[in-house]
Amino acid sequence: MKGFAMLKIGVAGWVEKGKPKPGPIDAVVRPLAVGMCTSDIHTVYDGPLGDVNFIMGHEAVGEVVEVGREVKDFQPGDRIVVGAITPDWRTIDVQRGWHQHSGGMLAGFKFTTVKDGVFAEYFHVSDADMNLAHLPNEIPLEAAVMLSDMIPTGFHGVELADMGFGMTVCVIGIGPIGLMSVAAARLRGAGRIIAVGTRQACVEAAKYYGATDIISYKTGDIAKQVMNLTGGIGVDVAIVAGGEKDGEGLLQAIKMTKAGGTISNVAYFSTGETLPIPRNEWGLGMGHKTIKGGLMPAGRYKLERFIDLVRYNRVDPSKLATHVFHGMKNIEKAWYLMKEKPANLIKPVVIY
Amino acid sequence: MKGFAMLKIGVAGWVEKGKPKPGPIDAVVRPLAVGMCTSDIHTVYDGPLGDVNFIMGHEAVGEVVEVGREVKDFQPGDRIVVGAITPDWRTIDVQRGWHQHSGGMLAGFKFTTVKDGVFAEYFHVSDADMNLAHLPNEIPLEAAVMLSDMIPTGFHGVELADMGFGMTVCVIGIGPIGLMSVAAARLRGAGRIIAVGTRQACVEAAKYYGATDIISYKTGDIAKQVMNLTGGIGVDVAIVAGGEKDGEGLLQAIKMTKAGGTISNVAYFSTGETLPIPRNEWGLGMGHKTIKGGLMPAGRYKLERFIDLVRYNRVDPSKLATHVFHGMKNIEKAWYLMKEKPANLIKPVVIY
Amino acid sequence: MKGFAMLKIGVAGWVEKGKPKPGPIDAVVRPLAVGMCTSDIHTVYDGPLGDVNFIMGHEAVGEVVEVGREVKDFQPGDRIVVGAITPDWRTIDVQRGWHQHSGGMLAGFKFTTVKDGVFAEYFHVSDADMNLAHLPNEIPLEAAVMLSDMIPTGFHGVELADMGFGMTVCVIGIGPIGLMSVAAARLRGAGRIIAVGTRQACVEAAKYYGATDIISYKTGDIAKQVMNLTGGIGVDVAIVAGGEKDGEGLLQAIKMTKAGGTISNVAYFSTGETLPIPRNEWGLGMGHKTIKGGLMPAGRYKLERFIDLVRYNRVDPSKLATHVFHGMKNIEKAWYLMKEKPANLIKPVVIY
Amino acid sequence: MKGFAMLKIGVAGWVEKGKPKPGPIDAVVRPLAVGMCTSDIHTVYDGPLGDVNFIMGHEAVGEVVEVGREVKDFQPGDRIVVGAITPDWRTIDVQRGWHQHSGGMLAGFKFTTVKDGVFAEYFHVSDADMNLAHLPNEIPLEAAVMLSDMIPTGFHGVELADMGFGMTVCVIGIGPIGLMSVAAARLRGAGRIIAVGTRQACVEAAKYYGATDIISYKTGDIAKQVMNLTGGIGVDVAIVAGGEKDGEGLLQAIKMTKAGGTISNVAYFSTGETLPIPRNEWGLGMGHKTIKGGLMPAGRYKLERFIDLVRYNRVDPSKLATHVFHGMKNIEKAWYLMKEKPANLIKPVVIY
Repeated sequence: MKGFAMLKIGVAGWVEKGKPKPGPIDAVVRPLAVGMCTSDIHTVYDGPLGDVNFIMGHEAVGEVVEVGREVKDFQPGDRIVVGAITPDWRTIDVQRGWHQHSGGMLAGFKFTTVKDGVFAEYFHVSDADMNLAHLPNEIPLEAAVMLSDMIPTGFHGVELADMGFGMTVCVIGIGPIGLMSVAAARLRGAGRIIAVGTRQACVEAAKYYGATDIISYKTGDIAKQVMNLTGGIGVDVAIVAGGEKDGEGLLQAIKMTKAGGTISNVAYFSTGETLPIPRNEWGLGMGHKTIKGGLMPAGRYKLERFIDLVRYNRVDPSKLATHVFHGMKNIEKAWYLMKEKPANLIKPVVIY
Repeated sequence: MKGFAMLKIGVAGWVEKGKPKPGPIDAVVRPLAVGMCTSDIHTVYDGPLGDVNFIMGHEAVGEVVEVGREVKDFQPGDRIVVGAITPDWRTIDVQRGWHQHSGGMLAGFKFTTVKDGVFAEYFHVSDADMNLAHLPNEIPLEAAVMLSDMIPTGFHGVELADMGFGMTVCVIGIGPIGLMSVAAARLRGAGRIIAVGTRQACVEAAKYYGATDIISYKTGDIAKQVMNLTGGIGVDVAIVAGGEKDGEGLLQAIKMTKAGGTISNVAYFSTGETLPIPRNEWGLGMGHKTIKGGLMPAGRYKLERFIDLVRYNRVDPSKLATHVFHGMKNIEKAWYLMKEKPANLIKPVVIY
Repeated sequence: MKGFAMLKIGVAGWVEKGKPKPGPIDAVVRPLAVGMCTSDIHTVYDGPLGDVNFIMGHEAVGEVVEVGREVKDFQPGDRIVVGAITPDWRTIDVQRGWHQHSGGMLAGFKFTTVKDGVFAEYFHVSDADMNLAHLPNEIPLEAAVMLSDMIPTGFHGVELADMGFGMTVCVIGIGPIGLMSVAAARLRGAGRIIAVGTRQACVEAAKYYGATDIISYKTGDIAKQVMNLTGGIGVDVAIVAGGEKDGEGLLQAIKMTKAGGTISNVAYFSTGETLPIPRNEWGLGMGHKTIKGGLMPAGRYKLERFIDLVRYNRVDPSKLATHVFHGMKNIEKAWYLMKEKPANLIKPVVIY
Repeated sequence: MKGFAMLKIGVAGWVEKGKPKPGPIDAVVRPLAVGMCTSDIHTVYDGPLGDVNFIMGHEAVGEVVEVGREVKDFQPGDRIVVGAITPDWRTIDVQRGWHQHSGGMLAGFKFTTVKDGVFAEYFHVSDADMNLAHLPNEIPLEAAVMLSDMIPTGFHGVELADMGFGMTVCVIGIGPIGLMSVAAARLRGAGRIIAVGTRQACVEAAKYYGATDIISYKTGDIAKQVMNLTGGIGVDVAIVAGGEKDGEGLLQAIKMTKAGGTISNVAYFSTGETLPIPRNEWGLGMGHKTIKGGLMPAGRYKLERFIDLVRYNRVDPSKLATHVFHGMKNIEKAWYLMKEKPANLIKPVVIY
């Protein structure tokens, strides 16, 4: 079968590989639609999290084509969504409450790091009963494909924060993840939502998803802008979904957060030895500004919960799909579009 | 000054009393609008929580007319909203985290139980800097008056529940409190929301505020209906905002909740020695179905958070005000309307 | 092989059954020591949770004699401890966070309800890698056998409560479970610990484990006694580990708890349609007295944590083993001792 | 009256000031014993948190000599303990849940930063009913004086961490604060407790308070040592009570903590622009290693809870008082002892 892979660091392209086979509890899936993610781009051009040579892609909805003999709840022909994270569920880490880190920190993330991803004719999913969810017919593919990563990751920024009704939130970075954090903040009961971003498509989407104020790095230090907007008080929660360079987004987030507030990171810091905590604004260590950061939660139960949010019209993620391609071969076109990030792009989706 | 008071158990009517005086940290307020609450009716006809003879009413927005010499942030002429609960803030109970129970269980509730309420020409508010909040001009009075009790109480049903994104919630009872629980559940990220009620005005409002399914006591046991709707699984969270008689709402809530779920009560049980927990469905004591119930939170900080929810259009509580009267003398008319509860009533409001 | 079983409701005795076989991820274990639990007695004389005819017993340490081909971390000859609860770990319920209710409410409890228990020459454990833990040599058998149920259940009473340092706790019932709740309360940072019980052996053990005050049902209403001891204030946390009849322990617990406190149940209520919540003392539904109750947590990770508590001398559960028998045949003697509960008994243990 | 004050940056000495007067809700206290704290030394030699020229000291037990007319629960002659933090209790910050930051980040800390401290003949306490607690006679002065800061700060390291029974904890730094973190970890149900320190007096005290393993900076990188001790797994909770230089303690703490664990800081970082988070070991931002840090909680309720811990023999902090001086004039001697920190010193106390 064909797949779009990392050929070596810095080079992506098509490869030919054998069709995967399911183990006793696994499934093989034919994609119906896939999403292109910035972290695919990071992997190829900044260096991979795991080994080289894997097929790229970790966002997909598809149709089950084959299942292992012990799979109970899925069968060939079922329309499904799969999370970007597909953990092993029988580990001590899961008993500790951390399926994302099942088998080691971040080890729940398998596509493109320890196995082939989804930009292929077929892909393999381990533990189908635990890692797949049935996709209702009424959800269109360009919305559904956001259930793999954009919704769980963006919403996790809010899940990590201990947010009460009416609180003031700042979301730093309004790419597709940050936009889902904005949507999640509104859906979690935030009052004022300040979004930090510049590109027009993203700014408009941020307002659509619930942002009340937009600020930009281009018009000065963002922590200062937030302080001005809030009368010197700062925000209850700052969600970091951008500003990865030198950990600047994290630094600014800590500066703009009230004593007792939460900084919640869903950005992926790919460079640097350390990330900075601003000592003074962190209260010399005693300001009760809690710093959290974590990989998106996964598994069938969570997928079903997010499916319900879409099904019951609590959020419409299809607005993220600014560029929809048809035909698997257009993965290549979508890839370079994501790499170049034109001003009108939020997220490219490829429908097979 | 005039006030509408409990004359004795079972009888309400107008009284003449002296205008209140503020202590050093207190304020005296002239109402701009007041809301009529079922618990006022309970107080007069089922027996009061505190002493007899007080002026009724605990929901008001108003204008400050006089402040004590140590009040810092409010002055005559300020438009304000005051919570139904106006606690003392310098107690051990507050240090424990329970301002609602400052000075004893439920003792944060003072209007009509230990002092005159708000259905008067003027009313007294203790600790103005802690118990008042400034009312923005853009919020209309019939929305603003819901900030005293309907929003904080209805939303508390959701605050008590440990609700994750996409969870399934049942709200038992869709009077004004239950309707605000429906709105709060949607604003907290619920997926499916099943509302239990019958009166047409309430059913329509429930759908407006986010209910996806409506069931009624009139068509059978509600726990069974919920089980049918959810394929035998039950709900993650059941909010009790009705079914007070014999604790039936609570009993049903426990029955319909999954193992590990939460039952959250904001109803006021005014009769009976005990309330029932169904032994089997509570897992013989071991089902991890947590039962909570609590008086609404209050204080300036919370009020400001709820004001932000209204100001930023996260919720529009004005839909509750189905009957708006003009002129203080119509408090009497509103009172009897609330007592009789016609089918098209959700909540009467009187604008002075 | 021989086993001590429920022959029919009301009758226990020896049976002969085939030696169990492990599935691919399971183990078969030869007991080294077993503990006798009140719930075994309940099962036979009050009616079982599951089917009749199973071998009794759910508390054991043993030696692995056979493992399935996919078991990774255990092999024949390993000394292990197994929890009373041995859930399936690949379910939606586990993803929800409730392994105790994996497959349905309480369904994590399998011994004696859906399969043979441990009072036998051999017993079967499903998912060995997830449900067993290695037993360090330095822990004596009569202490180790308390790791199956007494420690996890007793400690769960405290885990369910949101207990801060220095809080006042009441433990209602000081059989072996309640005694472990006393020990857990001390180990969780309780200040004053009031224990409710009468039998001399239990009273002495309660003091040993950290109780500061002892009261008895025999000298009057216990909620009143607690109120007297605490100057009318009540306790922060009440743990129900006794008083099962008519839910009296639960009722008293709610009465004696402060507004904002927690009632935490680990008792097994075997009779009655409903359990009572005292309406007034529950604040008419609004007192923020949270009522919890749940089956003990299990799994290898938790077992290892509790093993560490014993290994590092944080708690010595061997004091519970007041009656230690040697030889499997003495299971019968231990059984009737547990049924009769003489004054000097806390818990019988049988070392094979 | 006499007091021992910061004369200018780098110089401490005796001053003569007027005896303080209580406002309506305040008290004036005569010290019975005071404790010497590293942060006093920091203040004078590294630069103050607030203004110069204040009398030093924030740890004291004493006797009330005068109260304001509205003080209800304290009167002249009462023996009391006062927290190092004495917040204003009528602020929005308190309503948010952060009395430590009442009036601004860290603003609950008033002694030596905005008012005179306790190294004087008399000192002033604002809001006596909220900030004092009665000291039981049975608690000796050298234990009681640890209730002001050592216990609340050391224990806060554990309060901030979400610690379950049997977890493995590392406490970095075993000065008096770190030692109280060790004691708190044991009292919170930790299993293994690894303490990092070198001075003999502290090492012995760490073992007394519950440490199971001792490691030292002098024998290499501490994160590596912890990884070796734990078989490469790391700790559930790392408490930072030392290693302030360049934030090294924090950096190491993050490195040694498991994915999903908590890093809890109670150290006071007095230098540097930023503190470092190690990017890789923080999971590139996604490892769910939560970083917390906060000023000790205060107020009468908390003081009473900690008093109960001492009264009921849950912890004996008097072991910290390695050097007990008699006579107020010996404050000077104690001061220089604290500055020089000889090997046999944990904490100097001066009994008046």
